[in-house]
Amino acid sequence: MTGHSFDEAVALQHVAPGRLRGKTSPDWANMVGPFGGMTAAVMLRAVEDQPERIGEPVSLTVNFAAPIADGDFDIAVTAVRTNRTNQHWLVELSQNGVVTTTATTVFGLRRETWSETEAPPWQVPAPEGITPTGLHPTVVWARNFEMRFVDGAVPGAGADPSPSSVTTLWVRDRHARHLDFAALTAVSDIFYPRVFLRRGAVSPAGTISLTTYFHADGSDLAAIGDDFVLARSHANRFSRGYFDQSAQLWSRAGELLVTTHQMVYFKT
Amino acid sequence: MTGHSFDEAVALQHVAPGRLRGKTSPDWANMVGPFGGMTAAVMLRAVEDQPERIGEPVSLTVNFAAPIADGDFDIAVTAVRTNRTNQHWLVELSQNGVVTTTATTVFGLRRETWSETEAPPWQVPAPEGITPTGLHPTVVWARNFEMRFVDGAVPGAGADPSPSSVTTLWVRDRHARHLDFAALTAVSDIFYPRVFLRRGAVSPAGTISLTTYFHADGSDLAAIGDDFVLARSHANRFSRGYFDQSAQLWSRAGELLVTTHQMVYFKT
Repeated sequence: MTGHSFDEAVALQHVAPGRLRGKTSPDWANMVGPFGGMTAAVMLRAVEDQPERIGEPVSLTVNFAAPIADGDFDIAVTAVRTNRTNQHWLVELSQNGVVTTTATTVFGLRRETWSETEAPPWQVPAPEGITPTGLHPTVVWARNFEMRFVDGAVPGAGADPSPSSVTTLWVRDRHARHLDFAALTAVSDIFYPRVFLRRGAVSPAGTISLTTYFHADGSDLAAIGDDFVLARSHANRFSRGYFDQSAQLWSRAGELLVTTHQMVYFKT
Repeated sequence: MTGHSFDEAVALQHVAPGRLRGKTSPDWANMVGPFGGMTAAVMLRAVEDQPERIGEPVSLTVNFAAPIADGDFDIAVTAVRTNRTNQHWLVELSQNGVVTTTATTVFGLRRETWSETEAPPWQVPAPEGITPTGLHPTVVWARNFEMRFVDGAVPGAGADPSPSSVTTLWVRDRHARHLDFAALTAVSDIFYPRVFLRRGAVSPAGTISLTTYFHADGSDLAAIGDDFVLARSHANRFSRGYFDQSAQLWSRAGELLVTTHQMVYFKT
């Protein structure tokens, strides 16, 4: 424990083998329940905390089945399958015996292979030249991040609809906490819903399913420390109450850390 | 039952509430076990077959934890949560009591909202002008599809590495079976591993986790019938034994049907 609010929010108490207990943090509140990125980080951390866990995160899918109420929650973690170089896990978060969130994740050992980043890096201004802003001050969890928007900042009152759903921002922990896999998972969900940008207005929306693919390993994250990460998100199709959202997270040094995707429920 | 091999391969027998039994089909064999797209289709079908299922598929994530042996398998399906307009499911496929595959899926009711496809459609030649080819004849499952490659066909003997991981193809069921959600799920995994193209050679590779987001509804699929679907896939980063792969499926009429993503294990 570092006394940092992120560490407090992902802290889990082991109550039995594969059974953990945590508590929502008021610092990470969203409009209803906690920030989804924090919930995803908690699901990942539950696996990281398992003594028989091998390797580092490769893939994580979190399904948001029901709102999480403020207060205590229980997590059940199961190693579904352990292979020689990877491990498949199932995680369920519940409150009072009712499951609110499920996740599947694959951890794996990484080894040297032919490697190449095919996605082109982005030409954007350095964060130091951009004024820090953020989301609306009522979005409590967002206060934990320093956000410097390159484009696609959250629409203000009376904003016009945008023809593009693209948002690009530099983001880092406001309290200089060093990046780890849990934090990287949280940042994968940093983007406000793309429909806000397209419609020029805030409307009801919530992530249904969030998938994160980890390309970075622990030593890559250590090298980033508390520096900014460059994040860009876009949507492909908005249709009949749902849209998808795809994003990438890059280090300032030009390493693609994460590709992440989600399906979002919306109303207009 | 139509007597079509796809229908036979996804057919499940109900043995108890939430418990089903199926059998791998020799027509859908891959190098080891069945075609992953068929396994994903089976997982989806298991939910479609549940009497309390509401709505249509919105999101599906399948985790390939272990190879599936030829023969019988068991499926356990659980409705984790039923909301007013959507439903979260957990599916586990096992053989002799050992889980080989897990899936989570969200089904939902669709309703009219503001809708727009932001992803630009592709300018490609019509399928009628392209010679049908396919994958290597030893890839049994691929014989069920008619594939007409616009670019990025599977590299032949002595092929050079390609600087791009992009493959674009028109694909349809070879036996004129009409498209449904199970078939659309299978087609989401139609792409041979991107590393083959980049390296100009076949090498060990296998999908670890496959996520599919459904933008089309049942009436959209009915309108396509047995026509071609346009599919394009690319990778973002190959690194230390894993790469990601993202794809879109479009109808000939220009509707974005599916966005789909996967994390793949590879050796080189």
